[in-house]
Amino acid sequence: MKKLIQGGTVVTAADTYQADVLIDGERVVAIGNDLDIAGAEVIDASGCYLFPGGIDPHTHLDMPFGGTVTADDFETGTRAAAFGGTTTVIDFCLTGKGQSLREAIEHWHGKAEGKAVIDYGFHLMIAEANDSVLQQLQHVVEEEGITSLKVFMAYKNVFQADDETLFKTLIRAKELGALVQVHAENGDVIDYLIKEALELGNTDPIYHAHTRPPVAEGEATGRAIALTALADSQLYVVHVSCEEAVKRIAEARERGLNVYGETCPQYLTLDISYLEKPDFEGAKYVWSPPLREKWNQEVLWSALKNGILQTVGSDQCSFNFDGQKDLGKGDFTKIPNGGPLIEDRFGILYSEGAHKGRISLNQFVDITSTKSAKLFGMFPKKGTIAVGSDADIVIFDPQVTRTISAQTHHMNVDYNPFEGMEVNGEVVSVLSRGNFVIRDRNYVGAAGSGRFIRRSKFQRP
Amino acid sequence: MKKLIQGGTVVTAADTYQADVLIDGERVVAIGNDLDIAGAEVIDASGCYLFPGGIDPHTHLDMPFGGTVTADDFETGTRAAAFGGTTTVIDFCLTGKGQSLREAIEHWHGKAEGKAVIDYGFHLMIAEANDSVLQQLQHVVEEEGITSLKVFMAYKNVFQADDETLFKTLIRAKELGALVQVHAENGDVIDYLIKEALELGNTDPIYHAHTRPPVAEGEATGRAIALTALADSQLYVVHVSCEEAVKRIAEARERGLNVYGETCPQYLTLDISYLEKPDFEGAKYVWSPPLREKWNQEVLWSALKNGILQTVGSDQCSFNFDGQKDLGKGDFTKIPNGGPLIEDRFGILYSEGAHKGRISLNQFVDITSTKSAKLFGMFPKKGTIAVGSDADIVIFDPQVTRTISAQTHHMNVDYNPFEGMEVNGEVVSVLSRGNFVIRDRNYVGAAGSGRFIRRSKFQRP
Amino acid sequence: MKKLIQGGTVVTAADTYQADVLIDGERVVAIGNDLDIAGAEVIDASGCYLFPGGIDPHTHLDMPFGGTVTADDFETGTRAAAFGGTTTVIDFCLTGKGQSLREAIEHWHGKAEGKAVIDYGFHLMIAEANDSVLQQLQHVVEEEGITSLKVFMAYKNVFQADDETLFKTLIRAKELGALVQVHAENGDVIDYLIKEALELGNTDPIYHAHTRPPVAEGEATGRAIALTALADSQLYVVHVSCEEAVKRIAEARERGLNVYGETCPQYLTLDISYLEKPDFEGAKYVWSPPLREKWNQEVLWSALKNGILQTVGSDQCSFNFDGQKDLGKGDFTKIPNGGPLIEDRFGILYSEGAHKGRISLNQFVDITSTKSAKLFGMFPKKGTIAVGSDADIVIFDPQVTRTISAQTHHMNVDYNPFEGMEVNGEVVSVLSRGNFVIRDRNYVGAAGSGRFIRRSKFQRP
Amino acid sequence: MKKLIQGGTVVTAADTYQADVLIDGERVVAIGNDLDIAGAEVIDASGCYLFPGGIDPHTHLDMPFGGTVTADDFETGTRAAAFGGTTTVIDFCLTGKGQSLREAIEHWHGKAEGKAVIDYGFHLMIAEANDSVLQQLQHVVEEEGITSLKVFMAYKNVFQADDETLFKTLIRAKELGALVQVHAENGDVIDYLIKEALELGNTDPIYHAHTRPPVAEGEATGRAIALTALADSQLYVVHVSCEEAVKRIAEARERGLNVYGETCPQYLTLDISYLEKPDFEGAKYVWSPPLREKWNQEVLWSALKNGILQTVGSDQCSFNFDGQKDLGKGDFTKIPNGGPLIEDRFGILYSEGAHKGRISLNQFVDITSTKSAKLFGMFPKKGTIAVGSDADIVIFDPQVTRTISAQTHHMNVDYNPFEGMEVNGEVVSVLSRGNFVIRDRNYVGAAGSGRFIRRSKFQRP
Ligand SMILES: [Zn+2]
Ligand SMILES: [Zn+2]
Ligand SMILES: [Zn+2]
Ligand SMILES: [Zn+2]
Ligand SMILES: [Zn+2]
Ligand SMILES: [Zn+2]
Ligand SMILES: [Zn+2]
Ligand SMILES: [Zn+2]
Repeated sequence: MKKLIQGGTVVTAADTYQADVLIDGERVVAIGNDLDIAGAEVIDASGCYLFPGGIDPHTHLDMPFGGTVTADDFETGTRAAAFGGTTTVIDFCLTGKGQSLREAIEHWHGKAEGKAVIDYGFHLMIAEANDSVLQQLQHVVEEEGITSLKVFMAYKNVFQADDETLFKTLIRAKELGALVQVHAENGDVIDYLIKEALELGNTDPIYHAHTRPPVAEGEATGRAIALTALADSQLYVVHVSCEEAVKRIAEARERGLNVYGETCPQYLTLDISYLEKPDFEGAKYVWSPPLREKWNQEVLWSALKNGILQTVGSDQCSFNFDGQKDLGKGDFTKIPNGGPLIEDRFGILYSEGAHKGRISLNQFVDITSTKSAKLFGMFPKKGTIAVGSDADIVIFDPQVTRTISAQTHHMNVDYNPFEGMEVNGEVVSVLSRGNFVIRDRNYVGAAGSGRFIRRSKFQRP
Repeated sequence: MKKLIQGGTVVTAADTYQADVLIDGERVVAIGNDLDIAGAEVIDASGCYLFPGGIDPHTHLDMPFGGTVTADDFETGTRAAAFGGTTTVIDFCLTGKGQSLREAIEHWHGKAEGKAVIDYGFHLMIAEANDSVLQQLQHVVEEEGITSLKVFMAYKNVFQADDETLFKTLIRAKELGALVQVHAENGDVIDYLIKEALELGNTDPIYHAHTRPPVAEGEATGRAIALTALADSQLYVVHVSCEEAVKRIAEARERGLNVYGETCPQYLTLDISYLEKPDFEGAKYVWSPPLREKWNQEVLWSALKNGILQTVGSDQCSFNFDGQKDLGKGDFTKIPNGGPLIEDRFGILYSEGAHKGRISLNQFVDITSTKSAKLFGMFPKKGTIAVGSDADIVIFDPQVTRTISAQTHHMNVDYNPFEGMEVNGEVVSVLSRGNFVIRDRNYVGAAGSGRFIRRSKFQRP
Repeated sequence: MKKLIQGGTVVTAADTYQADVLIDGERVVAIGNDLDIAGAEVIDASGCYLFPGGIDPHTHLDMPFGGTVTADDFETGTRAAAFGGTTTVIDFCLTGKGQSLREAIEHWHGKAEGKAVIDYGFHLMIAEANDSVLQQLQHVVEEEGITSLKVFMAYKNVFQADDETLFKTLIRAKELGALVQVHAENGDVIDYLIKEALELGNTDPIYHAHTRPPVAEGEATGRAIALTALADSQLYVVHVSCEEAVKRIAEARERGLNVYGETCPQYLTLDISYLEKPDFEGAKYVWSPPLREKWNQEVLWSALKNGILQTVGSDQCSFNFDGQKDLGKGDFTKIPNGGPLIEDRFGILYSEGAHKGRISLNQFVDITSTKSAKLFGMFPKKGTIAVGSDADIVIFDPQVTRTISAQTHHMNVDYNPFEGMEVNGEVVSVLSRGNFVIRDRNYVGAAGSGRFIRRSKFQRP
Repeated sequence: MKKLIQGGTVVTAADTYQADVLIDGERVVAIGNDLDIAGAEVIDASGCYLFPGGIDPHTHLDMPFGGTVTADDFETGTRAAAFGGTTTVIDFCLTGKGQSLREAIEHWHGKAEGKAVIDYGFHLMIAEANDSVLQQLQHVVEEEGITSLKVFMAYKNVFQADDETLFKTLIRAKELGALVQVHAENGDVIDYLIKEALELGNTDPIYHAHTRPPVAEGEATGRAIALTALADSQLYVVHVSCEEAVKRIAEARERGLNVYGETCPQYLTLDISYLEKPDFEGAKYVWSPPLREKWNQEVLWSALKNGILQTVGSDQCSFNFDGQKDLGKGDFTKIPNGGPLIEDRFGILYSEGAHKGRISLNQFVDITSTKSAKLFGMFPKKGTIAVGSDADIVIFDPQVTRTISAQTHHMNVDYNPFEGMEVNGEVVSVLSRGNFVIRDRNYVGAAGSGRFIRRSKFQRP
């Protein structure tokens, strides 16, 4: 059956206009003012924006970390994402040395299947780059539809890859048409600083920030870019948090390199002082890279505004304060790294970005949806409202003002890092491939209705 | 009566998809796959792209210069533009010291009315910034719909404004919501170098380039940016030709300033060696800034690709080789500055840019149309194919290969700077507000059918 | 008669060693441990440093400004300089449009002759650069021994030269072997901001700073550098006060240009908050460029340490608080610009620089003496302690701690901007060409004993 | 017995003046025009410069490499150095994992003792930075007088240290007062490129250059600087060869970091095309970093001129063409890395630098001698001509023109990379601690007369 969304203002990465949107099955089939709506269910969107469903390019759902596992799995996580206006997530599939990639991917499929309420894809972590792995990547990219590969430059002795691994991955990615992602922090330096802090008895959450200085992020970012230049490949720097890293990306782009950058809502709105909250509350804000000095926020907003950074991911990786974060009492290195961010990414970008005029409405869509679709091979299926595209649509009321709180959020976790923040605009309804997941602020979706997306090879957007 | 363009691939700054486009009168009313086409004229666009009509943000039609006047006026110029895929031009309205702005604008309207075959707007030159002029600007911006103001930093004793004028214009523009444009070359330096060259008997066309060095452009660009920062205003640097200027713009954007840059097809494809053509043919390539060393081309393409520059204008300003350019035989300073570029801007960007993969198809649209519409207050009326927008549409066949030549071009001038260049893709038909101007490669428009566009105040795109 | 300074530690821009210094007449004739001292007067310098006499490359003595004249003339000014450890000053000879350069120079000689107690040279201000002036410069450089030319980019309608004047001066300087100095602030911008401030009733001293923003200094610095590059000439930027200007100089030096920079003790130790002192005391700190945000101090020290800036001048230009500075009550633009700084330049650099370890002892000598001698054509006559050089020697006790105060200083002015500052080290005695000017902290010199120094052409140091 | 050098022009890093120099035993005791010379041997230096003996901060004598050993040992190497005007070398003492530092140092002393004809010091290579090594470093710095520590960022699986090792070394160096040196090339990248080249059958010497691209040097330089900033330590980048590395050093110095850079005569005068010489002659020019594109030479000269780089070392590491270099026929990775450069370093800097006016005479002395003495804790014993300093003096005739050739050089090797280069100026005589090593162009020294120099802790120069 058809659906007609009437009276809304369609917003894409380029356009803003009033029109009705006709959906047939899973797809948009027409947009216009005088559409033939015989037999269509009419949905009123008067006064509302119609946004392409948000794409969160950076989530960790059902992920083991430091002896525990994230509080949100693919069901609770994607449901919260939908409440927030996100209709696609790309989750990081971990791998281990010696493990076959296919096995790892199977394992990750197992986490998502039957649970996800919206569509999802996987990035693949590269733990080592031996001949076997490089060989398997052809299958991964071409058959599995996993066209982005993540390399960690930090987390020594856990995830950290050396430059050889990164360089080989970049070269192989170029051959296969994949996009390489880096977590860019110098893990050797951080490892040393952590040991030194612990020796000195500096065990509070704030030392998480002090042992991961901005220069360590800037250095790794510059190094990854240099290797990308040498490999003539393409690079996407995840969770950029500070000016040092922005500068290197700006330089790279000025040189014409295919280098892209993502930041996160937390770096745009919170700062290092949160890590000093009393009663161990600082632990709620422990993730990597850490929150930075406040002035970096304006640098990040400017970088989004002027196209130096292209996307905003959540880096969702939630742990409860009670029972998980508190594992690190007396030793900040034991605090599970990460936060519950998947639900508010889209709304904060709207409110702090588009509503406050830091970015335009079209940039808001580009940053929260379109550019991720393009960079990660899902466009035009995802990332826009256009004829032929999946009907992943958010009906968004810009008039409402609301307050973010753990008491009202939908993530499976006992706190919200943005607790008390007033934001403008609210998600009213959300369609995923033509079906409501959220309708008039209520969940009407179904676990397992989300589908895995086989993504295309990398193309410059 | 309605028109239905069938079978084409719609391309906007964001999207690429197959759909039919329904036009009712002057506007697009629906886009879709199963539209109600009762009574619509059907136009077949199978195998073709449907691009938003090109917007040329930088033309000089019917302009006096150095005792002569451009070879193309609003009729021949806009007809050639239409042949090339452009449906809107913004022309520079000259003013003089002591002249009322209204008078100057009336004069320019007189040139365009009854002649233009496509829509057009005006930028207003600021010759001086005394209290009267600053006062008059309110009317200009708010009533005349002229929301961009041009300041020349070169052409000493002719157009050149001093820093006070530029600074006052930037401040006033900020108050009124206008965008300031600069021709950024240090006129004092150039004036000296020209006198020196003539004294030394260096009178050939190549000395036009030698007396306008890249550093003079970089310096002026940096200065205009500094003044913009101090005025907290917005700046658009026209015809960026070299790395020195790109660097300053990149810096400005990294600092978060509202600074934009335009380059031109000639700087992207030709180089300084053209000025050394024998038999005075170098004069054909005399414009300002001059053509640069070839390696700058890649810098400019990279800047377009990575969003450091946003638009491509033609800087159309045509003079015949015989009878006009040859005024400068024996004295390069007497060569009328400018070239016939309006017709090939769009096609060269497609062929050298999108076709060769230097930019994506969506970037091609953004650069040749959308961004100009947004920066200059014409969006969404112009610059996109969307419901409610003007039906300014180019039906473009990407399969054709053709050769640019003065023998086949439509400008009223006896040479073409791109003579002999093979390009991919051809404009088949062009609609301006729903009416054909070019149909199946033939001109079917009418002088005077183009309308003046009252533009909106500046908004960040 | 000969003099032998015994027991001191000789410090030059390169060396630090213990040795006796033998002076015969005006010059050093030997340095060693076993010198033949028959008939020499022995001066004990045990525990003291022997520094080359300081060279202050930037003073304004007996200078008219805004209807008044500086409080210090060549007698009181040079005597205070000597007390502070300075044995040579280079003063700025003003010129006016239409005035012959010879006349202007004669006039300035008249101010110094019979008054100066130490040696002195002149820089020549270039007010205009017409053919006559450019012609006269040959005589100035080659006969008068004035080999540095000052161009003002600020003080609109008073001193300000346009880019043509600066460019011609740079080209002429290159031909003649002169060094061009610029006061680098964008005067047009400042002029506008001042008018705006006055219109808004912002008349307090702090608005002197607010109307001369750092970007205006950075811009002008960058512009002067660009013109220098185009002229292939040499440039010395006076009184660099902020990071914006340092960055441009660093860039220029990285590109290999012959660009040099000077800062002043006031920018290294005081900051913008001084301009907000109550009871109009802020007026004591009104000079141009203005004092800046405190963080710029570290930038300037780093630039001295790492050779991005080469010298420290005082920009001595003293006006009494009572009767002169107070002309500007109710209108900051009427406050005579300048401060009494000649006496403490050398001592502050020692204490805040060498003593605190921000620069080495050899760098202290280089910055306060040697580099100015080299850049301004007085080396090796001035600027070092070496065989054959003028015996301009400071005997300096590094053990003493003292407090700067107007009550004890020797300038002819009623306040000291460094009032209350504790400094390490004290000038004990000062010799100028072998004769004591200061002996054991007492003045023993004579007005008129200072000689004009005909300086050599510019050579890279 | 005393010696008096008469009639020469003394040149130091700061001064240039005519004077006689009196030597008593090993030291300079007086400099002057009317010295008491009773009983002194008089040496005529009329028309000659007296330079402080050159200090070569970067040599590899008697060093094993790739299954062979350098052609020059401490005897032939230091004798050739003396012929060239060098009176002190600092050689790199290799260490291995698991070896005690004392043992390694003993071993290196064994190579030099009884052989060196001029004075020498050692830098110590840091192969690993475990607790034992970090502990031993206190003895090394404080007792052995070895105050510079070398870390290799290249030569994977041979010398290459990881970032942890470099970071720990920087921190330890800061505590102990040592200067950390890096060979800055990204070894992981190079290792990959080499394997790839060999797989593709690219085995000629030119592939040595192609597999070590400038970006790999720039990246490693930037990384070492970032780690230095984080450790608040001091860094000396050896053998800087290209613009990418110069840029990073310039940036670091602008930020105020204690970062220094050395280049070598080969990078200043030769270029990548030498590696393509036929008949395997390219192998003569195989060292690391490789020779670069010619335009880098001007960048390096500018960096020396403007103080971005401070020293020039030879990186002497000689292998015969016949019997050693030819080990790499058919596989460039088997070519022993290094060249015979110790003899011509000083002369080339004079001729190509000071004589051609790229640097001043004082800069020549600073770069070839003084700055190395200061950075490496040998000043004022070495690096200057001053009372109390070692009488390490070069009598240099600037009038002579000569041609460099293997047939006339004094190194124990069968080719000279500068073969056929005409240079201005010649070393006439050389004194080491007051004794002639070279006298009137003849060797009069003695193996074993050179002494090991216990160097002082690092101080900023
Ligand atoms: Zn991460
Ligand atoms: Zn993550
Ligand atoms: Zn122009
Ligand atoms: Zn134009
Ligand atoms: Zn000044
Ligand atoms: Zn001054
Ligand atoms: Zn090395
Ligand atoms: Zn080496």
